[in-house]
Amino acid sequence: MKKNKKVNAAILIIGNEILSGRTQDTNTSSLALWLNSIGVKVNEVRVIADIESTIIKTVNHLREANDYVFTTGGIGPTHDDITAQSISKAFNLEYMIHKEAFKILEAYYKIGEFNEGRQKMVWMPKNANLILNPTSGAPGFNVKNVFCLPGVPSILKSMLGGLKNKIIGGDPILSHTISLKTVESEIANSLTNVQNNNITVEIGSYPFFQAGKLGVSIVIRSEDQLKIDKCSSEILEFVNKKKIELVNR
Amino acid sequence: MKKNKKVNAAILIIGNEILSGRTQDTNTSSLALWLNSIGVKVNEVRVIADIESTIIKTVNHLREANDYVFTTGGIGPTHDDITAQSISKAFNLEYMIHKEAFKILEAYYKIGEFNEGRQKMVWMPKNANLILNPTSGAPGFNVKNVFCLPGVPSILKSMLGGLKNKIIGGDPILSHTISLKTVESEIANSLTNVQNNNITVEIGSYPFFQAGKLGVSIVIRSEDQLKIDKCSSEILEFVNKKKIELVNR
Repeated sequence: MKKNKKVNAAILIIGNEILSGRTQDTNTSSLALWLNSIGVKVNEVRVIADIESTIIKTVNHLREANDYVFTTGGIGPTHDDITAQSISKAFNLEYMIHKEAFKILEAYYKIGEFNEGRQKMVWMPKNANLILNPTSGAPGFNVKNVFCLPGVPSILKSMLGGLKNKIIGGDPILSHTISLKTVESEIANSLTNVQNNNITVEIGSYPFFQAGKLGVSIVIRSEDQLKIDKCSSEILEFVNKKKIELVNR
Repeated sequence: MKKNKKVNAAILIIGNEILSGRTQDTNTSSLALWLNSIGVKVNEVRVIADIESTIIKTVNHLREANDYVFTTGGIGPTHDDITAQSISKAFNLEYMIHKEAFKILEAYYKIGEFNEGRQKMVWMPKNANLILNPTSGAPGFNVKNVFCLPGVPSILKSMLGGLKNKIIGGDPILSHTISLKTVESEIANSLTNVQNNNITVEIGSYPFFQAGKLGVSIVIRSEDQLKIDKCSSEILEFVNKKKIELVNR
């Protein structure tokens, strides 16, 4: 299959614990960094509650608007894990026992331990494709362009390797960071000029504190290394003129 | 003004650096915890790119669908800070110099330091209300039910105190956590029964790893302490029956 130049995705975090602030989401940045590395750009992220109608509506919107959708959370054994049944309804597919998933978990658990709670985790949309879980057995799944992953960060990360062959990325998104010992307002105008000269390149400016000192990281992003290099040299030109110190970061 | 029983909000994180995975968002959990403490429930969170049309469309959707909207990011001095101009367009208001903000920053900076870059930060939607910034001078602002805060977490946090009087929360959302030395599948069925007996209470189940051991935190949330207590005792009943150990967490 030919690569598309631009491939995009949405991330959908499903979980009341993120909305309440109790749990700090880290899956967004893990997924985004990994997707970038395989040439998929994240267009948007949404965090929604464990409410079936909300999940259905949001998934159906995002899967139309993006090449890929990655959901996290809600595929465990408890009553608040309703992602699989919601995805079934979103695609109008039967919610049923997945035979291959059943075999995997039957083999994973000791005899007698594959109880009713655990068996809930093999209920999926009909004919879903499995995403193998090397950490804790219970697989994720995908239906068309929607990929459903668990919410526990370490388990999610361990499943990305097995997912790679299922995602067709575009050109990798390259980036270069220039960190400066300055404040944003000192470079704002010069940076605007560079951005205006290079409108197809994404230039971001991010203040930071490091060892008690203020600094700014300028991040240049593009699929084209030559464009990044051109931008970078224009930035270094005004940095040198203004006698601003570069810092490692 | 009379308190509503339920008051909800959306959080809108504006910033390419979160979508690329480069920066780990922490503002969602800071804002969500604070909002919960003043009786505002977060319904949804969205992370979007620094694209004017996207910001306008998303803000206009969220402000209709929620009592409050809190945006973070994009109010600094550089070219990629486009929140204020986008909010002006979303509300069809003139984007102009805010006199009070100008005075604040003129007094904040030393003579000669209130340069063109910094002056960008006083451009806001016409007649916006200021949200004072005790950390770094430049204020946030609000228009109707939309509150615009900076992206730097320490600055954002320092501004919440001054924001409290502008938000009218509902009944505080109370919660109680019971942490157990068990795995989710062992308690899934019993917990489903408790949830079915208490349908107006939100019961979440979250696995954790602590000192190499698996555990589950059960979080009970409601505006009504009596309902939480009833749920809690029903949970402790099956926990005792199953001889599951409680853990501190």
